Amino acid sequence: MTDQTNASWGGRFSEPTDAFVARYTASVSFDQRMYRQDIQGSIAHAKMLCKVGVLSETERDDIIRGLEEVRIEIERGDFNWSVELEDVHMNIEAALTQKIGITGKKLHTGRSRNDQVATDIRLYLRDEIDVIASELTRLQQGLIDLAEQEADTIMPGFTHLQTAQPVTFGHHLLAWNEMLQRDYSRLMDCRKRINILPLGAAALAGTTYPIDRHYTAELLGFERPTENSLDSVSDRDFAIEFTSVAAMIMMHMSRFSEELVLWASAQFQFIDLPDRFCTGSSIMPQKKNPDVPELVRGKTGRVYGHMISLLTLMKSQPLAYNKDNQEDKEPLFDTVDTLRDSLRAFADMAPHLQAKKDSMYEAAKRGFSTATDLADYVVRKGIPFRDAHEIVGKAVAYGIESGKDLSDMALQELQQFSEQISDDVFEVLTLEGSVAARDHIGGTAPNQVRAAAGRAKAALAER
Amino acid sequence: MTDQTNASWGGRFSEPTDAFVARYTASVSFDQRMYRQDIQGSIAHAKMLCKVGVLSETERDDIIRGLEEVRIEIERGDFNWSVELEDVHMNIEAALTQKIGITGKKLHTGRSRNDQVATDIRLYLRDEIDVIASELTRLQQGLIDLAEQEADTIMPGFTHLQTAQPVTFGHHLLAWNEMLQRDYSRLMDCRKRINILPLGAAALAGTTYPIDRHYTAELLGFERPTENSLDSVSDRDFAIEFTSVAAMIMMHMSRFSEELVLWASAQFQFIDLPDRFCTGSSIMPQKKNPDVPELVRGKTGRVYGHMISLLTLMKSQPLAYNKDNQEDKEPLFDTVDTLRDSLRAFADMAPHLQAKKDSMYEAAKRGFSTATDLADYVVRKGIPFRDAHEIVGKAVAYGIESGKDLSDMALQELQQFSEQISDDVFEVLTLEGSVAARDHIGGTAPNQVRAAAGRAKAALAER
Amino acid sequence: MTDQTNASWGGRFSEPTDAFVARYTASVSFDQRMYRQDIQGSIAHAKMLCKVGVLSETERDDIIRGLEEVRIEIERGDFNWSVELEDVHMNIEAALTQKIGITGKKLHTGRSRNDQVATDIRLYLRDEIDVIASELTRLQQGLIDLAEQEADTIMPGFTHLQTAQPVTFGHHLLAWNEMLQRDYSRLMDCRKRINILPLGAAALAGTTYPIDRHYTAELLGFERPTENSLDSVSDRDFAIEFTSVAAMIMMHMSRFSEELVLWASAQFQFIDLPDRFCTGSSIMPQKKNPDVPELVRGKTGRVYGHMISLLTLMKSQPLAYNKDNQEDKEPLFDTVDTLRDSLRAFADMAPHLQAKKDSMYEAAKRGFSTATDLADYVVRKGIPFRDAHEIVGKAVAYGIESGKDLSDMALQELQQFSEQISDDVFEVLTLEGSVAARDHIGGTAPNQVRAAAGRAKAALAER
Amino acid sequence: MTDQTNASWGGRFSEPTDAFVARYTASVSFDQRMYRQDIQGSIAHAKMLCKVGVLSETERDDIIRGLEEVRIEIERGDFNWSVELEDVHMNIEAALTQKIGITGKKLHTGRSRNDQVATDIRLYLRDEIDVIASELTRLQQGLIDLAEQEADTIMPGFTHLQTAQPVTFGHHLLAWNEMLQRDYSRLMDCRKRINILPLGAAALAGTTYPIDRHYTAELLGFERPTENSLDSVSDRDFAIEFTSVAAMIMMHMSRFSEELVLWASAQFQFIDLPDRFCTGSSIMPQKKNPDVPELVRGKTGRVYGHMISLLTLMKSQPLAYNKDNQEDKEPLFDTVDTLRDSLRAFADMAPHLQAKKDSMYEAAKRGFSTATDLADYVVRKGIPFRDAHEIVGKAVAYGIESGKDLSDMALQELQQFSEQISDDVFEVLTLEGSVAARDHIGGTAPNQVRAAAGRAKAALAER
Repeated sequence: MTDQTNASWGGRFSEPTDAFVARYTASVSFDQRMYRQDIQGSIAHAKMLCKVGVLSETERDDIIRGLEEVRIEIERGDFNWSVELEDVHMNIEAALTQKIGITGKKLHTGRSRNDQVATDIRLYLRDEIDVIASELTRLQQGLIDLAEQEADTIMPGFTHLQTAQPVTFGHHLLAWNEMLQRDYSRLMDCRKRINILPLGAAALAGTTYPIDRHYTAELLGFERPTENSLDSVSDRDFAIEFTSVAAMIMMHMSRFSEELVLWASAQFQFIDLPDRFCTGSSIMPQKKNPDVPELVRGKTGRVYGHMISLLTLMKSQPLAYNKDNQEDKEPLFDTVDTLRDSLRAFADMAPHLQAKKDSMYEAAKRGFSTATDLADYVVRKGIPFRDAHEIVGKAVAYGIESGKDLSDMALQELQQFSEQISDDVFEVLTLEGSVAARDHIGGTAPNQVRAAAGRAKAALAER
Repeated sequence: MTDQTNASWGGRFSEPTDAFVARYTASVSFDQRMYRQDIQGSIAHAKMLCKVGVLSETERDDIIRGLEEVRIEIERGDFNWSVELEDVHMNIEAALTQKIGITGKKLHTGRSRNDQVATDIRLYLRDEIDVIASELTRLQQGLIDLAEQEADTIMPGFTHLQTAQPVTFGHHLLAWNEMLQRDYSRLMDCRKRINILPLGAAALAGTTYPIDRHYTAELLGFERPTENSLDSVSDRDFAIEFTSVAAMIMMHMSRFSEELVLWASAQFQFIDLPDRFCTGSSIMPQKKNPDVPELVRGKTGRVYGHMISLLTLMKSQPLAYNKDNQEDKEPLFDTVDTLRDSLRAFADMAPHLQAKKDSMYEAAKRGFSTATDLADYVVRKGIPFRDAHEIVGKAVAYGIESGKDLSDMALQELQQFSEQISDDVFEVLTLEGSVAARDHIGGTAPNQVRAAAGRAKAALAER
Repeated sequence: MTDQTNASWGGRFSEPTDAFVARYTASVSFDQRMYRQDIQGSIAHAKMLCKVGVLSETERDDIIRGLEEVRIEIERGDFNWSVELEDVHMNIEAALTQKIGITGKKLHTGRSRNDQVATDIRLYLRDEIDVIASELTRLQQGLIDLAEQEADTIMPGFTHLQTAQPVTFGHHLLAWNEMLQRDYSRLMDCRKRINILPLGAAALAGTTYPIDRHYTAELLGFERPTENSLDSVSDRDFAIEFTSVAAMIMMHMSRFSEELVLWASAQFQFIDLPDRFCTGSSIMPQKKNPDVPELVRGKTGRVYGHMISLLTLMKSQPLAYNKDNQEDKEPLFDTVDTLRDSLRAFADMAPHLQAKKDSMYEAAKRGFSTATDLADYVVRKGIPFRDAHEIVGKAVAYGIESGKDLSDMALQELQQFSEQISDDVFEVLTLEGSVAARDHIGGTAPNQVRAAAGRAKAALAER
Repeated sequence: MTDQTNASWGGRFSEPTDAFVARYTASVSFDQRMYRQDIQGSIAHAKMLCKVGVLSETERDDIIRGLEEVRIEIERGDFNWSVELEDVHMNIEAALTQKIGITGKKLHTGRSRNDQVATDIRLYLRDEIDVIASELTRLQQGLIDLAEQEADTIMPGFTHLQTAQPVTFGHHLLAWNEMLQRDYSRLMDCRKRINILPLGAAALAGTTYPIDRHYTAELLGFERPTENSLDSVSDRDFAIEFTSVAAMIMMHMSRFSEELVLWASAQFQFIDLPDRFCTGSSIMPQKKNPDVPELVRGKTGRVYGHMISLLTLMKSQPLAYNKDNQEDKEPLFDTVDTLRDSLRAFADMAPHLQAKKDSMYEAAKRGFSTATDLADYVVRKGIPFRDAHEIVGKAVAYGIESGKDLSDMALQELQQFSEQISDDVFEVLTLEGSVAARDHIGGTAPNQVRAAAGRAKAALAER
């Protein structure tokens, strides 16, 4: 590309065209984060090549030593990444060859960048899933511990953001835990499908060298080699499935966040968030903005977007490898970072959520939240369902008019609606009575909450 | 809403406002497809209520008989669905009560529409997953059978849609099967998480009736009851996970479709599609448009879209049930229909794909597709990797100039590039030699393809 | 397809294969809604063919008469739509030919279904945009009228859902109007790009008949004919652009809805929603669920999804027409319905929103919402910015301790933080003073709100 | 955060918690790219504050001088960005204050970060749109020039990827130009809505200072100030609209790319791509992978994803500013980069596309592509439409059987199907005759292509 053409674009582009195309098509700026996995995969490959007689033991050892030197250089920050060498694989191989000479070139025997990159990403993603799983567990642990402490703390349960029935805060916390429990299960299912070795597929058809893919799989901790070479180099399901799982987790996190933001508002006042997850304002010292939950909520879109990117990327691609596939990495990497950091922030924050119990209790008392309990009570006294409804309707209407909640009414007041009502009604009309009565698996009764927390803990312990 | 206001909208709206709002908020037009599951769930609930003493045996039997009458009416097309009754649940309950009187009203004891609808959808989706799984199996069976037949059929393998190396058509078909194999595995993992009973969560907090959720779960074939009532009525993970799985399957189907469309073109001529999956043109009798693959490719977007709908729906929703959740059904139903029908169409079509073997073979011969084989051969003769590359490069350059493929050259012609080349070179230069040499698990060698087909069949047999 | 094959799928599929493929590929079940536009386009085409001498006047008149009879039949519900005839175009043409004989077949001269369907959709979408635009205007009108009434009504302004500064309810309503104003502008820009005639592109290359595309464009009210036949039959930009505009509107509606749901909660109590946009509960008479806003919020995802469907559909499609494109209609139609009905519901509701002024005012007073005003006041008295901040910080700290808002403090109490504070401070510390002081274009001062409402009305009047 | 807690996470996290939260919530790592616009906006703000008497002329001049020093430092790479200072705004303000003392702090009078960031993004996006528009123009220019050169070059036109009718390559290139022409129009409509000044909205309600927003708007080249302060700080429509426009452009680019990849394949051989937009293979010297088109096609998903991110971000956010909004930047910035670079790559490449005219011509001849022309010819000879179809059908069947295209048949051969056929038939049966006959606006006739190119050039000239 000559200077003239360059000039015709105007001053904005300071680099010559070839450099632009090189930069546009290179991946080293983002795929270098897989250097550890690239080296790990190459070492296993070299061992396998030696086992089947393609490399001598000396060659194998030279390669391993050279690669380990490269890794140390990278980790020390001494490595000079080059855009001309396109990607992490070529950069490392070039450095290796510079170190150990022509043997470095033999490392690539029986493989291709197509199966190499597929292997690297799977190794990388497997590592990151393990970190993410441990943050997820830490967050769940925090929620379950808090749920046990707050098993008796009463708050309003909402439907349509209208007060419906009293529940316990512990019960609400365990609802969040259930979401995360499913997320963990999905993450492990995803990991299981990632943990399969594509190396050996070579460019697309396999290789003519007598490779032992089972041995390489074993060295790298993969469950087994993949079944089909064309599929191995063109498959990006693992990235899509991971971002799907991540999108679901972020959706759940957005729901927690929404509730934390609501509950921290002056209108709700249900919780206090730890200071360091919020920002203040120098001019309005009372202000405590719930920055971290808001940001987590905002980051949800990011992960949804990455999933759509990857699905779009793969739509209608003919087999086998196409350059399009290079675009799998950035959405995946950013999903990993976003998910891991968001979970970490919440795992740090969860144990320090402080319930404002009085506000919660007061809010639960408002809105005749035990009306359903009164109806159930009257039915148990033998009154038909339909009549029971009518009785409660009248009692509530009286309560609205007189400014009294059901539990504030005297027995005589209640009895004007039904003679069947007797002294034991107050057990069901109190918030405590109401929650205690929902005493079955999944119900909000404090002893059920404690039992559920116990089962949840046991599930964590089994991981 | 008075007539005046109505008039102010102009003539377009012929119905009074209240009817508009009723229609806008009603779901019966689409949720009536779950009538079977609604009745199934209600019968199990009635049995459980009887077991725990809330209903008498007579009441239980009346309810069951009434519900079965309702089902028959619906299936006969005699049922009168009413928008005023909002949804499938209320329509059926109202019909039941009309049939059996006040006992009909007792059916709703200890449950709420919130947990009822969550149960119905899970039952519905479980049923549909079983149908989809069987279509998936049928499609895989067709592909594997064809792969066995075509284990020796040579075609070009592409990367970047450029001829790369020869592969067999059977190998290519098994690449598709691998995708579907993962899809099946994801579908089963999804089914496992669906198969849990939310009934008993009632409105959001559980119920004061002494329900036996384990018994209901058993009656309905669910693995266990859910752990948390708030989560049970607000959870829509199953719908999202299902559409994620469906999006992946459709992505795979879009890749098959893309290849079928390419291969059926005048430029490729690799396959013939069965007539009834195509349309012709009265004026251009030679034209055979691959309508079904094109349509499947087009429907991919539909399922991606539904998944985004559902993720957006749930983003930032506070617990527990909100009316928003009513919007879960249409995307889910349309995903079920689209996926099931697309799989069915492909399962019908796959066994009838006809390879145009001569065209495939001719195409594979073009483009020096065995250059890699020559390099590997020379390396095996003891020549260093780097030199081997140079040798092959020169041979190909000569071939381009002289219009000969590598296998068309005489031994002497080849030997001018390296004396190490001897008579046995032609085994590796032929397409047959090339594919046969990739003889390891996952490779394209015909015997590997046959072995892979055998393993794939065994996997199907285990379902 | 023989019975055996059919039997092998099991009992679920009751129809023979060919019928299944026919149904899978047919569009008449959904594209029949464009019958009016199809007939309108055909009449214009017939007139043009007559003008250029391809049809005689008698033929033209027969066609027009026949098409009008078909329309009447359809509108009366007497038309028999047939799946075998695939789509709305073939159904109408077949009916026409049945009515007027062989002349009916001449109608298709010089056109193809590819340009015909592109024309029909544009006509349809143009019609629907006009209805949607009028609902948008009606909603804006309602908001602006209410904003004028509520120009002085004080409520808390939030950032991070924390009380920040007082604003007026009228000001908040006009924020919503601004969003819709941009939406209207986008909708009109979209309409402008839709209003161009593709007819005449024929199958893909134009036609050999001497057609007059300018004349057809004029007859149908299009601005001009399209410039390129390949583009004309493959372009679906209009559908994507429309769904993008719709997605933005629904996003805005989801924000209104979120606020309406919050404000209708027991915790906020800022507004009362009209009864008919809510549902109640027989057992909890105080409960009023904001169903319509929740549903609108939920429907947002639906439209986002449809946009992704269409973008995915068109990704990587080679020119010109492919069968994939048939999938453009259902997402588009459902977007039209969802958007139109959601706007209609809000346009009906908006004028009837009732501000609970006392609750709003009380909420605005909490939280030292005028702290910024005090700082600005002190700065105006000549105190450096930094010191001003410190003064206010101390005053607020004192207020929190003593349980007094800034405006509740006596002059002496305030003066202990700065001697510069004098009697006129109370003008700025009141909520009324605070809002009145933000007196510039875009500010919340009541007179600015009234002026903005005036400008907004003028903008509506110009439509 | 103490060391203990830190320890409890295990060794992976090397930084103390506060640093983690600080990093998680900071934006400076990505928003620093707006430094130029931030300084530009601040200078205009300072000038306005001076005009209305809030700053003295000396203060104004100090601020301007200081900001310009900061800009120079940043551009020289001497600026020390600090995560503790959170964002670009605080970093620059802190540096300014360090340079010019307390006057630096006065710059923030009458504004807030909420309106400041909204202003910066609009300035940034306006600048980038101008660069993108010029790349778009350059690409269109290249396509139109090539279209003029290739106005007579015949290639097959496809529907369903089946040969349909001959078109000219110039016509096909102009189809691409039409897409870009609409894109340009959408981009300009988007720019118009961006070009409005939010500054003056302050935190959310406006400010008590006597600001002159019209003056600031004028200084910054904005058309007018925004109408509503709440909307001004919470609006992110511009980012969503821009990414929607970008998604459409990338969709179009994915369609070009798909065709380029197809056409560069061994099966099509329609074009040669310039070398520097491709990569080769050392072992397969004939291989030329179309990397740039593949990558552009792959990057489409990226932009779709960013649009979904932003729509999800804004869904259901209550007014006014929430921390979620910080997440608007990265998707926007990456969309800008992706779109600009992809357009640049194509604008560089387009003029160098080389048509392989012989291959195109040969392909067009195959497949009876002039069958429609024969039918039209026979109709013009007075034979009814239906009979014409039958005649052509028979001729094509004969052609398939005898291996002759229509134009290869002798007159006598043709006449056996209809006596009306005479010597002039060969004009319409040739590819040249076929394209020349589609001679109306939008048709593929070479003179129409030249005329269309002329109009397209004129449209560019008017920009």
